[in-house]
Amino acid sequence: MSAKRKQTLGVCYYPEHWPRERWETDARMMAEAGITHVRIGEFAWSRIEPEPGRYDWDWLDDAIEVLHGYGLGVVLGTPTATPPKWLVDSMPDMLAVGADGKVRGFGSRRHYCFSHEGYRRECARIVTELAKRYGRHPALAAWQTDNEYGCHDTVESYSKAALEGFRNWLAQKYQSPDALNRAWGNVFWSMEYRSFDEVELPNLTVTEPNPAHAMDFQRYSSDQVVAFNRIQTEIIRAHSPGVPIAHNFMGRFVAFDHFAVSRDLDIASWDSYPIGFLDRDTDDEENKLRYLGVGDPDNQALHHDLYRSCGQVRNGEIEGRWWVMEQQPGPVNWAPWNPAPFPGAVRLWAWEAFAAGAEVVSYFRWRQPPFAQEQMHEALLLPNAEPNEAYEACRQISAELARIGAVAAPERSDVALVFDYESAWAWNIQPQGRDFVYFDLVLRFYRALRQWGISIDVVPPEADAVSGRRLVIVPGLFSGTNMLVEALATGEAIVLLGPRTGSKTKDFQISEELPPGPFGRLIDLNIRRVESLPPFADVKLKDGGRFDGWREFLVPGTGTTVHRASIDGHEAHVSQGRVHYLGGRPDEETAKAIIGELLRESGITPLDLHRDIRVRDNGSLRFVFNYGPETVDVSAIANGAEVLFGEALLGPREVLALRR
Amino acid sequence: MSAKRKQTLGVCYYPEHWPRERWETDARMMAEAGITHVRIGEFAWSRIEPEPGRYDWDWLDDAIEVLHGYGLGVVLGTPTATPPKWLVDSMPDMLAVGADGKVRGFGSRRHYCFSHEGYRRECARIVTELAKRYGRHPALAAWQTDNEYGCHDTVESYSKAALEGFRNWLAQKYQSPDALNRAWGNVFWSMEYRSFDEVELPNLTVTEPNPAHAMDFQRYSSDQVVAFNRIQTEIIRAHSPGVPIAHNFMGRFVAFDHFAVSRDLDIASWDSYPIGFLDRDTDDEENKLRYLGVGDPDNQALHHDLYRSCGQVRNGEIEGRWWVMEQQPGPVNWAPWNPAPFPGAVRLWAWEAFAAGAEVVSYFRWRQPPFAQEQMHEALLLPNAEPNEAYEACRQISAELARIGAVAAPERSDVALVFDYESAWAWNIQPQGRDFVYFDLVLRFYRALRQWGISIDVVPPEADAVSGRRLVIVPGLFSGTNMLVEALATGEAIVLLGPRTGSKTKDFQISEELPPGPFGRLIDLNIRRVESLPPFADVKLKDGGRFDGWREFLVPGTGTTVHRASIDGHEAHVSQGRVHYLGGRPDEETAKAIIGELLRESGITPLDLHRDIRVRDNGSLRFVFNYGPETVDVSAIANGAEVLFGEALLGPREVLALRR
Amino acid sequence: MSAKRKQTLGVCYYPEHWPRERWETDARMMAEAGITHVRIGEFAWSRIEPEPGRYDWDWLDDAIEVLHGYGLGVVLGTPTATPPKWLVDSMPDMLAVGADGKVRGFGSRRHYCFSHEGYRRECARIVTELAKRYGRHPALAAWQTDNEYGCHDTVESYSKAALEGFRNWLAQKYQSPDALNRAWGNVFWSMEYRSFDEVELPNLTVTEPNPAHAMDFQRYSSDQVVAFNRIQTEIIRAHSPGVPIAHNFMGRFVAFDHFAVSRDLDIASWDSYPIGFLDRDTDDEENKLRYLGVGDPDNQALHHDLYRSCGQVRNGEIEGRWWVMEQQPGPVNWAPWNPAPFPGAVRLWAWEAFAAGAEVVSYFRWRQPPFAQEQMHEALLLPNAEPNEAYEACRQISAELARIGAVAAPERSDVALVFDYESAWAWNIQPQGRDFVYFDLVLRFYRALRQWGISIDVVPPEADAVSGRRLVIVPGLFSGTNMLVEALATGEAIVLLGPRTGSKTKDFQISEELPPGPFGRLIDLNIRRVESLPPFADVKLKDGGRFDGWREFLVPGTGTTVHRASIDGHEAHVSQGRVHYLGGRPDEETAKAIIGELLRESGITPLDLHRDIRVRDNGSLRFVFNYGPETVDVSAIANGAEVLFGEALLGPREVLALRR
Ligand SMILES: [Zn+2]
Ligand SMILES: [Zn+2]
Ligand SMILES: [Zn+2]
Repeated sequence: MSAKRKQTLGVCYYPEHWPRERWETDARMMAEAGITHVRIGEFAWSRIEPEPGRYDWDWLDDAIEVLHGYGLGVVLGTPTATPPKWLVDSMPDMLAVGADGKVRGFGSRRHYCFSHEGYRRECARIVTELAKRYGRHPALAAWQTDNEYGCHDTVESYSKAALEGFRNWLAQKYQSPDALNRAWGNVFWSMEYRSFDEVELPNLTVTEPNPAHAMDFQRYSSDQVVAFNRIQTEIIRAHSPGVPIAHNFMGRFVAFDHFAVSRDLDIASWDSYPIGFLDRDTDDEENKLRYLGVGDPDNQALHHDLYRSCGQVRNGEIEGRWWVMEQQPGPVNWAPWNPAPFPGAVRLWAWEAFAAGAEVVSYFRWRQPPFAQEQMHEALLLPNAEPNEAYEACRQISAELARIGAVAAPERSDVALVFDYESAWAWNIQPQGRDFVYFDLVLRFYRALRQWGISIDVVPPEADAVSGRRLVIVPGLFSGTNMLVEALATGEAIVLLGPRTGSKTKDFQISEELPPGPFGRLIDLNIRRVESLPPFADVKLKDGGRFDGWREFLVPGTGTTVHRASIDGHEAHVSQGRVHYLGGRPDEETAKAIIGELLRESGITPLDLHRDIRVRDNGSLRFVFNYGPETVDVSAIANGAEVLFGEALLGPREVLALRR
Repeated sequence: MSAKRKQTLGVCYYPEHWPRERWETDARMMAEAGITHVRIGEFAWSRIEPEPGRYDWDWLDDAIEVLHGYGLGVVLGTPTATPPKWLVDSMPDMLAVGADGKVRGFGSRRHYCFSHEGYRRECARIVTELAKRYGRHPALAAWQTDNEYGCHDTVESYSKAALEGFRNWLAQKYQSPDALNRAWGNVFWSMEYRSFDEVELPNLTVTEPNPAHAMDFQRYSSDQVVAFNRIQTEIIRAHSPGVPIAHNFMGRFVAFDHFAVSRDLDIASWDSYPIGFLDRDTDDEENKLRYLGVGDPDNQALHHDLYRSCGQVRNGEIEGRWWVMEQQPGPVNWAPWNPAPFPGAVRLWAWEAFAAGAEVVSYFRWRQPPFAQEQMHEALLLPNAEPNEAYEACRQISAELARIGAVAAPERSDVALVFDYESAWAWNIQPQGRDFVYFDLVLRFYRALRQWGISIDVVPPEADAVSGRRLVIVPGLFSGTNMLVEALATGEAIVLLGPRTGSKTKDFQISEELPPGPFGRLIDLNIRRVESLPPFADVKLKDGGRFDGWREFLVPGTGTTVHRASIDGHEAHVSQGRVHYLGGRPDEETAKAIIGELLRESGITPLDLHRDIRVRDNGSLRFVFNYGPETVDVSAIANGAEVLFGEALLGPREVLALRR
Repeated sequence: MSAKRKQTLGVCYYPEHWPRERWETDARMMAEAGITHVRIGEFAWSRIEPEPGRYDWDWLDDAIEVLHGYGLGVVLGTPTATPPKWLVDSMPDMLAVGADGKVRGFGSRRHYCFSHEGYRRECARIVTELAKRYGRHPALAAWQTDNEYGCHDTVESYSKAALEGFRNWLAQKYQSPDALNRAWGNVFWSMEYRSFDEVELPNLTVTEPNPAHAMDFQRYSSDQVVAFNRIQTEIIRAHSPGVPIAHNFMGRFVAFDHFAVSRDLDIASWDSYPIGFLDRDTDDEENKLRYLGVGDPDNQALHHDLYRSCGQVRNGEIEGRWWVMEQQPGPVNWAPWNPAPFPGAVRLWAWEAFAAGAEVVSYFRWRQPPFAQEQMHEALLLPNAEPNEAYEACRQISAELARIGAVAAPERSDVALVFDYESAWAWNIQPQGRDFVYFDLVLRFYRALRQWGISIDVVPPEADAVSGRRLVIVPGLFSGTNMLVEALATGEAIVLLGPRTGSKTKDFQISEELPPGPFGRLIDLNIRRVESLPPFADVKLKDGGRFDGWREFLVPGTGTTVHRASIDGHEAHVSQGRVHYLGGRPDEETAKAIIGELLRESGITPLDLHRDIRVRDNGSLRFVFNYGPETVDVSAIANGAEVLFGEALLGPREVLALRR
């Protein structure tokens, strides 16, 4: 169930980059293409407040009026990602410091330290001014706080402000240095502290710092993002009642806890650049080449599901909202290489998002700027203001949205895949094998589910989130709460745990009962040894498939069943009742096989899909996507359903919409 | 036409490294090998001025006398690349600062910041002393200022002196902060400045700085090299009338504008290390292996042509002079690996330079030092003073020079290839695809021309330089002046533009008319999209060949002709009248095919050469070079001409000299 | 001959990590497994002295008593590798500074600068307290100074203390700046100093520093390790008469002169992690895969032989002692990937060490800690105190030791392989080809000897060490003393020199007589040219085999014999009388062939071994090891000998013990 909001298009717009005379035309063209939402303002501090305390509202008043005149809803960004030079010069210690000890200077963006009290006060001031002036404006559709928290590795700062903040945070958490010493195990290597003021930041140590130290610093840093954001949301709610607040998260970014920030957001949104992300998603060149101009078939989808989940944190499943705040319209400027989208890809991306329940898909950006850092980033319009390809795609998409009366109607999935930010930090701090990456591990299971045609919920490791499911996948969960274990124990879902799940306490210690720690309640098993393996080695399984890079040596109890074993004679996949444990990182073949078995065990019927085909349900609608280079016959999927648009002989990067 | 100076050999000599008693023998052996020019002094500051203000001229007086006694001409270097420790200690802020913010200390060479006024004053002092003492000495053949400006990445310094200098430079260029803000597009990301004193250097920013900011800093830095050099040349001209001034440029080095520095030079020279450079020229291991001991067949040649052009900046085509100031005689010490030259390679290199019109080919260095950083760098003599291989090569080459009465007589070529330092900076700042390197792009076209047997002029993007040609190639030219466009429009040359040519204004903004900007006057075309592609992808062309890494989407006007298209259906090579545009980075096959067509269109007859063979004309002489491992029959080229030396069955790394 | 001490097992134990109640059980279990030696204390400073000047001995008294109660000998570590935070805060400049100029902070271990006088005083104080309290305790079996000097690249520090120390050291060595200038060749690039106070540390120079400068700094840094260690050994000897002193060296670590430190040690020991080291030993993936869970078959063995040699420096061959202080028991945490040992590997490692004459093989560590940096490092016990695999291996090994009455009885080998720390520094400073690594060069010859079944002595470049041998191998020896040359000249051994042997003077200058410098007395030869080659090139030899990466151009005298030549026509391997010179870096095939010839020439009968088989003699015992994955029939080796344990059909990672 959901509130079933209408699905629509948006765009990011920078009126301050263009002559006043042009705005009218821009607004008209937006409306003509079916765009309804326009994000503005998020980098405009130097135009809003050109000198300390002198505000210039005229241009922004005008811009909002012009947009309003064409019925466009305004998404107003707070400009705190780009403090002007005069502000930085007034308190230079607001700049963040990198892990290398260097001040990160002015000259681009995000040049601030989240811990700096002075900068927080300045942000509160400018947000208050903005919220007072526009908080009740009829054009206002939503707020966006700041922009892409953490972009360019800016969550962690190793500044004096951060050091002081961290010491206070530790004092509050542990109350006594002895408690901290015990929790971290500081007796090891004589790292014991006599006072919180002796604690340093975990950078520039001779060799790696204590992982518990690094973990607490990551938690502290994440908490500063939450606090920084909350200052803004509290001010906005006070001055702009009823207007939803969003932030635009990023792809493959885990340096702060997005669920925690989402507690203060009405709308979770993210910035989706499928081609730009492709370079990071895989090092498989055959796949990269196949999907060069369309992106990994599962990466965007995973983020959609994750951020839909974030959007439900504050207001629940029914009122929860999620958007794509920035959608790639053409080649970007920031990846190592920047290919053009394949024909059809721009439209496919929009429908993949709508199929996942997105309310708004908003393009970045309206018109390609001729100047500055992003001049090579394409937009809906060319630098000379002529429509570019994606502008035409907008026309088509908005017509289709209207034709099918599209609404955001995501339903709770039978399948939940647990995603946990602390786990991402933990395995980043302690990979134990160079290529062990938490996000990649989750993606392997997500991909397998998608390959079987499943619509998935990606959820936090919480009791509510997993209860009432038929299948719950919990890969690599650093630590587990008793409540989560209890929920899994009392539910009826088939559960897949591991690898590494439950292997640590919250204090980053190995569980006293040995891994899987508290999950040992669900399955009689312990893990006495793990090994990581270089890419040229692997663990072959008896019935085909393999683990790559990671393998655990399971000691299962007598009540367990062995489903898979390695050819060197070790248990690889065991179960007891509804609960399975997987002792390694599965390759694509193995992941797909296991997930297929578990789906059937859960009573869910998987679809047998072509490698390039993906399927997604939104309410009563089913969408079929072809990410590949060839036409694929998907009539078996379409079977019996009403075709809303598209064809069962589904062309490359084409979409088929069905009513189930 | 040229002044037809005699061609001859030189050597770099460090009398201060050897006992006084040895100098006489050295001079005699130089003369015996046919060497006529000896460069000395350029690292000897600590011997010339062992303590502040106390000069020791005796040894240098003697050294010059000894050389003079054997009829050797002296090339006297100013010692400003190696300020002594006492000078650095007297003003430590003269040290440059790296982009990482670290001071670049004493202990090797080039430890100074070009912007530092105090160091400039010290240089003026020592150069004045030198020029006064030796400026009219009869042995003096030429001066060399400093040594290898910019070696070890020393053009850019991020020091306090540079910051102050940069702010003044910007103030002079833009006159008002608003003008700077508009030119750079600082409204983007609130980077606007209220005063020039707010501008910082473009290093240590959170993410990339504004490309316009980076570009102006590169221009500023280049200007400091020009100014630094001019201080010396003005002093020298005052005290040493009529003696030509040289500087020794480097290979594949573009961090300052060599044409601009050359305005103050009578002789452009460069330091040619064919084997050392091979590691950077290509990552094609088959080619690297084939040319391991001889170097890339086209890289040295391109530099010869470029620096010949530099040598003509101040005094024109007739009086212009160029030398190889340092020529590799054996293995060097500084490349990742340092192979020995193949038999014949040392002689081939000399003749390749002479064929390109070099007046002097000077070896680095006379005798291999047993000590310090370059002890593994071979020389004409072994450390124990016995002749090494290259000494014997000198004997042979000087005999051949005498036999054929060689003079420097380069003629203006029908073919001009435009080379532009600002373009190298621009695409370094904004490659848009990781492997887009301007120098490499130029080399692709240069190589194709050489493969067709053409002698080429490599010229600056100026009207004079392109006029009167039959074929002009303009690859990747960042920006274009109206005068250049006018010259191309009114000339009769076939012109090849692109890729990326004319895509930016001088302010590093996308041209208002879209690329190719002002070159759109020559051909009815605009470029609405570009894409960069990783090495495992490419753009295949319909009739064979391909673009690698870079492709543009052309929108040609109705009056244009399409010569090539991609198999995915986009125009790749179009023309209108005499003017062609190429929309991608051509692989070797494609470059060769296109250049072949354009040569024929220009009425120039290409030669059909074996892959290892290169041909070069100097006045009435034609030289044929075999860079390969096998004997090649070149009698078709020799056909009818008088053989001066060499054979038509041309052995590996052998040279054939013909009179046309 | 040796003192024939009993061979036994040890373990590293951290009582401070576990509850007092557990210690008794631990001690009992140790004794039960046959462990006799327990190392404790080396990271416990914060527990011994929790606040400045307040000592807490109770726990350590107790721990020693408990161990003593079970008859266990205590190896007591000084805790100077982990100074507590309060000490660091009391003098922050005791922290080392990295080559990048950054202070290396508190938060892990080894956070100190060897040059810091204040820290040396603090170490003297804590060691005095420890030595006074426990120096005559009956349980005390040995001392260990500090822990793994130099781990995490901590030998070199670029601190103020180091700068001052270095200047003094230079003043003492050279007496006058002129002498230093001459020795370093500072006239090159005007690097001359007028006073020792002008000399800087060799980091952060614009380009590479003078190699002589770098070399002297490495010597200085090594000397500080020696001096730092000697402060401790002198105090210990004063307060703990008769108790031997050890230090635990590392694998593949050469940053200080271990022979020099060993002058103050009674026992040389090292920390052997065969799997962890595998990643660095080779980039041959086929080999890495074959030996993934057992380690390189020759790397540990080489270290055993090297440190056995170190152990004889102070007390001579008979009284010399060596241990493995830390032996890997399972996966570790610190390599890029951390595979588990193959079945049998743990036992094989122990026997390889005992076969090489180790007195104690001590496991690291007793019980896997659940906390801090090494929580993923396995131990004899699991974190939950259950025995892990290696505990069971200990039982078996100690039973076997008892059964055969094993004693350390290494005999002087007929074959000496010279190892020299200065050479490692020299070729690190001046590799001349990117992949030239001294350790790797030595390993190539060592491996060839092992492949022929030879037990080897790895010795310093000293006359005593090489005299009385039948075969002496001297690869890559930077410089040579007259005494060494004299010893080789007057002995009767077959000698193999080169490549690079004798190529420099101690001042890092090329020998006046050209390489091989003083070794030219032994063979009439000089080397006029060297070349380094990239991995895709090589030098093929006429009768098969090749040099990779390095080749010298030999000019042999008339009295020499040519044994090998390259297919491009250069001498590659020549000899005169007993002395051979090899002019390149041999590949495995070539090294094996040459060593085989030299063994026969020396009258030593090589064994023809399977690729995975190694043989080692200890006194009258012979051990045969199978490092490979298949069973190998070694009955030809066993022929006639009494089998102590194991079988002639030797299984994977199995050991066969024979009495000869
Ligand atoms: Zn971003
Ligand atoms: Zn240079
Ligand atoms: Zn260590």
